[in-house]
Amino acid sequence: MDLNQITNPSFLKKMNKEQLTELAKEIRKFLIENLASTGGHIGPNLGVVELTIMMHKLFHSPEDKFIWDVGHQAYVHKILTGRANQFGTLRQYKGLSGFPKMAESEHDVWETGHSSTSLSAAMGMAAARDMQGKSNYVIPVIGDGALTGGMALEALNHIGHLKTNMIVVLNDNEMSIAPNVGALHTVLGKLRTAGKYNSAKDELEYILKKIPAVGGKVAAAAERVKDSLKYLLVSGVFFEELGFTYLGPIDGHDFADLERNLLYAKKMEGPVLLHVITKKGKGYQPAEEDKKGTWHGTGPYKIETGDFVKSPTTAPSWSGLVAETVRKLAREDKRIAAITPAMPVGSKLESFAEEFPERFFDVGIAEQHAATMAGGLATQGMKPFLAIYSTFLQRAYDQMLHDITRQKLNVFIGIDRAGLVGADGETHQGVFDIAFLRHLPNLVIMMPKDENEGQHMVKTAIDYNEGPIAMRYPRGNGLGVKMDEQLKPIPIGTWEVLSEGTDGTILTFGTTIPMALEAAEKLSSKGISVKVVNARFIKPLDTDMLDLLFVAGKPIVTVEEAVLAGGFGSSVIEYAHDTKATTGSIDRIGIPDEYIEHGSVDKLLEEIDVTAEAIVATMEKAVENTLVRKREKI
Amino acid sequence: MDLNQITNPSFLKKMNKEQLTELAKEIRKFLIENLASTGGHIGPNLGVVELTIMMHKLFHSPEDKFIWDVGHQAYVHKILTGRANQFGTLRQYKGLSGFPKMAESEHDVWETGHSSTSLSAAMGMAAARDMQGKSNYVIPVIGDGALTGGMALEALNHIGHLKTNMIVVLNDNEMSIAPNVGALHTVLGKLRTAGKYNSAKDELEYILKKIPAVGGKVAAAAERVKDSLKYLLVSGVFFEELGFTYLGPIDGHDFADLERNLLYAKKMEGPVLLHVITKKGKGYQPAEEDKKGTWHGTGPYKIETGDFVKSPTTAPSWSGLVAETVRKLAREDKRIAAITPAMPVGSKLESFAEEFPERFFDVGIAEQHAATMAGGLATQGMKPFLAIYSTFLQRAYDQMLHDITRQKLNVFIGIDRAGLVGADGETHQGVFDIAFLRHLPNLVIMMPKDENEGQHMVKTAIDYNEGPIAMRYPRGNGLGVKMDEQLKPIPIGTWEVLSEGTDGTILTFGTTIPMALEAAEKLSSKGISVKVVNARFIKPLDTDMLDLLFVAGKPIVTVEEAVLAGGFGSSVIEYAHDTKATTGSIDRIGIPDEYIEHGSVDKLLEEIDVTAEAIVATMEKAVENTLVRKREKI
Repeated sequence: MDLNQITNPSFLKKMNKEQLTELAKEIRKFLIENLASTGGHIGPNLGVVELTIMMHKLFHSPEDKFIWDVGHQAYVHKILTGRANQFGTLRQYKGLSGFPKMAESEHDVWETGHSSTSLSAAMGMAAARDMQGKSNYVIPVIGDGALTGGMALEALNHIGHLKTNMIVVLNDNEMSIAPNVGALHTVLGKLRTAGKYNSAKDELEYILKKIPAVGGKVAAAAERVKDSLKYLLVSGVFFEELGFTYLGPIDGHDFADLERNLLYAKKMEGPVLLHVITKKGKGYQPAEEDKKGTWHGTGPYKIETGDFVKSPTTAPSWSGLVAETVRKLAREDKRIAAITPAMPVGSKLESFAEEFPERFFDVGIAEQHAATMAGGLATQGMKPFLAIYSTFLQRAYDQMLHDITRQKLNVFIGIDRAGLVGADGETHQGVFDIAFLRHLPNLVIMMPKDENEGQHMVKTAIDYNEGPIAMRYPRGNGLGVKMDEQLKPIPIGTWEVLSEGTDGTILTFGTTIPMALEAAEKLSSKGISVKVVNARFIKPLDTDMLDLLFVAGKPIVTVEEAVLAGGFGSSVIEYAHDTKATTGSIDRIGIPDEYIEHGSVDKLLEEIDVTAEAIVATMEKAVENTLVRKREKI
Repeated sequence: MDLNQITNPSFLKKMNKEQLTELAKEIRKFLIENLASTGGHIGPNLGVVELTIMMHKLFHSPEDKFIWDVGHQAYVHKILTGRANQFGTLRQYKGLSGFPKMAESEHDVWETGHSSTSLSAAMGMAAARDMQGKSNYVIPVIGDGALTGGMALEALNHIGHLKTNMIVVLNDNEMSIAPNVGALHTVLGKLRTAGKYNSAKDELEYILKKIPAVGGKVAAAAERVKDSLKYLLVSGVFFEELGFTYLGPIDGHDFADLERNLLYAKKMEGPVLLHVITKKGKGYQPAEEDKKGTWHGTGPYKIETGDFVKSPTTAPSWSGLVAETVRKLAREDKRIAAITPAMPVGSKLESFAEEFPERFFDVGIAEQHAATMAGGLATQGMKPFLAIYSTFLQRAYDQMLHDITRQKLNVFIGIDRAGLVGADGETHQGVFDIAFLRHLPNLVIMMPKDENEGQHMVKTAIDYNEGPIAMRYPRGNGLGVKMDEQLKPIPIGTWEVLSEGTDGTILTFGTTIPMALEAAEKLSSKGISVKVVNARFIKPLDTDMLDLLFVAGKPIVTVEEAVLAGGFGSSVIEYAHDTKATTGSIDRIGIPDEYIEHGSVDKLLEEIDVTAEAIVATMEKAVENTLVRKREKI
């Protein structure tokens, strides 16, 4: 069939097993072909083709609520709800989102991006249903990786306690983004190989009958034995203990098995956990064979070979640069340990893990634990490097505040993917960290202008022993600059003048520095001479330099790829007010008070006016106003 | 013995059972007598007297690391480590902290306040120990309530997976601050009554032997039966599944039982979970009989009667005012539901729970789940009221950002204990919420000047259907003002002029309004006439009023009982810059870039210069400077 013709999933109701199998094949072909040119989360989606089809066949979305945890596995759901024809624009500006979006379809009843939120959202929807006297199903689909996130465990505990009607689909592919860790993973592993309810039941009843009838104390014990045998009969004791009925393991690529169990779950009272085993990348060999998570989300690739269409850069990736510099320093410095919450590949920590296995900790999707564990290490004289994406550090805000900065512990926080991240869109933009970190006492925050300064900053962070220190770095690659042989720390709180000028100053850091230099050149051709300052320490500010700039009284323009509210520019004007400086104008360029959608970073920056042109226009006007004011005074 | 003479816990090593029993009695007497005058966390500490004594007898703090989760149960530890003589100043300014503090003693190796951090910290310390080739013990003590916090579950999962040597003491008193909820609570309940390993073992071995030997398929099944029986033998299957050795239940008030099990745990490899049953308030009748959590933490009380020494106010408590107004509105509005993360008493939601049991959710210590569940409710047309302390909302920052504000869901967030909280000190001050919330798009934040405006604000929040809305309110009681009969919503983003003036303006909100009015009077007596504005909407600002104030060009002083960095005053100066207003000076008064210790709120405000006097001085100087500048111009 032509997938582009699908408008809603009702056509599935009448389909037989053969037709479903054919449909699954077509969807896989569609995904493999389309994502080859757009890129996207190919692995997770190939894994849930049959599951998604069977869910839409047996339930009635949107009355029944499908909640896709993380949400990067919702492509099949998007196809079945009439969005196949938009896949050419997947993850592009104004194109189809890579995650569920309410604005796209009534079938997207909850938006995700970060992991482990689905059970809490489902609990809310189920509670609302019960209060409103409705009877719809609520079906969160959560991966085995996301299940270990703290908030998912909090929700499990609550749902199991209230015995709320809910069908939790545990999509167990034995890896989330990277291979999974955690004791729960072991629990699931045992279940996977334990065999099924039905096959075990007969054998066990035979055994049970053989237990002799006895009296007195022993009778009570025998009862307890029978009770305990229930654990084996029903399997999934872990989930049963938490109040769930466990069904599984179920072959997630077998329509009959899925149908039987989903129908069974529909009839049950209370919370049910459906343990569905799927294969990430199913049906596309390169993705199926992936052990490391490379095919979790990709850019464009060649279908025949599975080769990625590489970007032409030869500059090191930022994650790689930081991880490798840490690794180099760890050879000399035994205090250094590295922690990642489930991102060993993304954070490029694999080489570190290989060289220092005993000093490397992948804690799974568990940002809160990762941060506070780093704090615990620091209390014992270690120097932990916590590699974490800006957007996921949001999960550890209280741990940063209450455990790390309050106790002034020597943790080096590597804030990866800081700034706009592009295609992942509004759930993943790393644009809030300055605003949520700079009001934390005792914290140093820095961002390098290029990878050479980046390596010196890593050294700065490792050498710094007066409390926590964070280094932001963007997604993607460095600029390809020459690298110094010798690492040397940068004095804390010092900025750097990149180009001199007399009419005004641009203060910026990190990714927006090239933009500022470009603006300075353009301004120069208009006869306006501006200083460009690399404000590499976001906290503490270089107040010596600021004092001089204020005294000079020329216009200042701050530029940041981060939210303006409470951001870097905000801290500059705070300082100006606090010192009662008679300064020139201070204009701020940065991200306005709205969530930024998906699209290429360049396109997004253009849309929100964080560009060289915007800097030029702002500075030009500010210089003009200064002259007007001067003239008025004369 | 004289507890004041204790300098370190080594004296315990030689004590026999009788002496220990006598010591326990003395410590209880000491606690009951001292806390009667200072107040404090009496319930939790009376429950851990024997446990703490036995820990210090059998281990060697500080080489062995004791980590007190939450930390309000560390009084006995403080006494045994030489701090008895400081209990007269407990929780007072510059006095003994109510929580572990590294600066107080080398025996306090980790500072707590918020719950559920101990296992992560312990994991860090244990990992450091292993990397450093040391062999000390790491012993987190965590309550059954704190165990359900997401980060504790994340840590359990990681520790059980790595099989790290660690002795986790689960202090199970069947209630944390309020009676516990959650499926894990049920798990613990079953264990409590399950009897012990030793008594069960003999009986079960008898049964096992009766299972006949069989061949073939059935033999494998029989093996699995025997495996499953291990669950019953060892008990604590939930924890065993997570990779822990479970020991318990242990009588937490029986020295012999504690000693036997702690010694056994010392000898074991891998993580051990010691399930210790204690009684909160043990040895003081009013606290022992407490079912609601009233004796968890108290002010001063009369020892003989257990009557609390009441403060003389007749004004309603802020928590009570808000909860009762929500309850009143819930009678007419079936959309309203209330959620609390384990604070039904503190948030005064008991009456709501009684009147609307089906619309009330105590989710346990699970702030992340609470927030996102509220979001889930909102997607289905409900109007959830999330009652949460400011300091605990820090745990749900990402959920506020990623789930609630990004999806623009109609959640009413009641931010209780906003501002300084006093005796609980730096872990609990509710002073960060403006800085971590105001950069979130789509969010309205407000704070009332008194309880009458407070009730109208609740109505405002319930009526508002354009996204999330937060209302801050302080710890303690209202001002005792007259209450309007009729509730009416306040137009979003409008401020109120409380007193007119021509020389300058004080912009403030909430608790600092009386201070501002006092300052205005003092200034008036000095011939300076200032306007006082109730800036009741922190976001959005009343930009109409600000535009007029800016045009007037008179000095503005902003005052907030919250951090200055990125705070309310910061947003005012941001707005001034963004609109390129030619304004008078803007000075900001608020909390500096440091953590604020414990002490009375008035004392603390004085220390950080958030006072009427400071406002007077700041305004006086600003007005003077304005005159100087004017003169210069002339």
